[in-house]
Amino acid sequence: MAPKAVILLSGGLDSTTTLAIARSEGYDLYAISFNYGQRHRVELNAAKGVAEATGGCNHLIVDVNLRQIGASALTSEQEVPKGRSMEEMSAEIPVTYVPARNTVFLSLALAWAEALEARDIFIGVNALDYSGYPDCRPEYIEAFTKTANLATRAGVQGKGFRIHTPLISMTKAQIIRKGLELGVDYSLTHSCYDPFPNGKPCGRCDSCLLRQKGFEEAGVKDPIVSGS
Amino acid sequence: MAPKAVILLSGGLDSTTTLAIARSEGYDLYAISFNYGQRHRVELNAAKGVAEATGGCNHLIVDVNLRQIGASALTSEQEVPKGRSMEEMSAEIPVTYVPARNTVFLSLALAWAEALEARDIFIGVNALDYSGYPDCRPEYIEAFTKTANLATRAGVQGKGFRIHTPLISMTKAQIIRKGLELGVDYSLTHSCYDPFPNGKPCGRCDSCLLRQKGFEEAGVKDPIVSGS
Repeated sequence: MAPKAVILLSGGLDSTTTLAIARSEGYDLYAISFNYGQRHRVELNAAKGVAEATGGCNHLIVDVNLRQIGASALTSEQEVPKGRSMEEMSAEIPVTYVPARNTVFLSLALAWAEALEARDIFIGVNALDYSGYPDCRPEYIEAFTKTANLATRAGVQGKGFRIHTPLISMTKAQIIRKGLELGVDYSLTHSCYDPFPNGKPCGRCDSCLLRQKGFEEAGVKDPIVSGS
Repeated sequence: MAPKAVILLSGGLDSTTTLAIARSEGYDLYAISFNYGQRHRVELNAAKGVAEATGGCNHLIVDVNLRQIGASALTSEQEVPKGRSMEEMSAEIPVTYVPARNTVFLSLALAWAEALEARDIFIGVNALDYSGYPDCRPEYIEAFTKTANLATRAGVQGKGFRIHTPLISMTKAQIIRKGLELGVDYSLTHSCYDPFPNGKPCGRCDSCLLRQKGFEEAGVKDPIVSGS
């Protein structure tokens, strides 16, 4: 029997590629997504589509209301910045930063992993072409792993958790090439922070711009077209 | 202006005492509770009552559905053990253990603390008269603090978080005496894992038994009476 892995799946480009990598490594797949009050809730439809297109993938969408906490442009009515240069993006932690989001999400993934008796958790964090979030760095992942192994029955019993971050030192272009190699259908994914009411990407938020740059550098056409 | 503190408040004896301690230390109080699909949801009414009785205490109840994850007698239809001896309770991690619960709750408390620009988080974990949960130990709290300071914008900016565990080395009797000193009204609290439909405690689950033992050892009468 294949070992089980829990994969954090937002429905975006990075997490979808991460799911494909976990699949290529032979894991029994348990994708977890979060209905957290995000402005771009449409990403959950993408996550469902990606999970369905990945044969044998289980999928759980957990409700956790981060809109009650707010303090982010993604979980409030605060405006999402548009048209920023790469320099502007990397100058500081952006207003789309959601306080402690990866810690909340990894905790819930850890809870599910423990419930499933899985030891492997995959997360598509990326410290290179990232958007300046502190909870995407390797030292953070290492600290969380240590916490996870002290927090849980499984950890106490010596069945420690491993957190896999296969994208951590890849550029967006490398991620896309890797995904295409593994047969990922990027037309199913959604990256935009501030989509139009019809669900189409704005084409101008940090996430859209990083995605465009990635496809350009990979020399591939993005199957998703921006605009209303 | 007093510094803000986020206090995890279940509505039980330990967290209510912790709130009183944070108050006595002069913090501006932000209590956080969780509607997590717990069998004993009635504890949220206790949490509300305690917060209201604590002058100037803000209160947030965050929805996070751990029943979707299950694997605990507190978040499923699995039976809650009754009438166990102290030896049985400390022999192993009980079925009321909720996978990664304190990590999920501390993550959400951390998110709120960051949103509020608070640096202090209080949690009423207790490593002595506890019920065998791994995420109540000092080494766990230390690891979580390190993770928190790597995870967040505040941490990166050198405004590190402190996690206060004032009860960690106290017995239940000491906790009760401390609370009474600080004027805590324990009639407002709820400890039972498996209350009767009318909300009254069962008197026989681990949590009820630890509470009874605490009041006995403190030489004080529990203002709450068990039974249907």
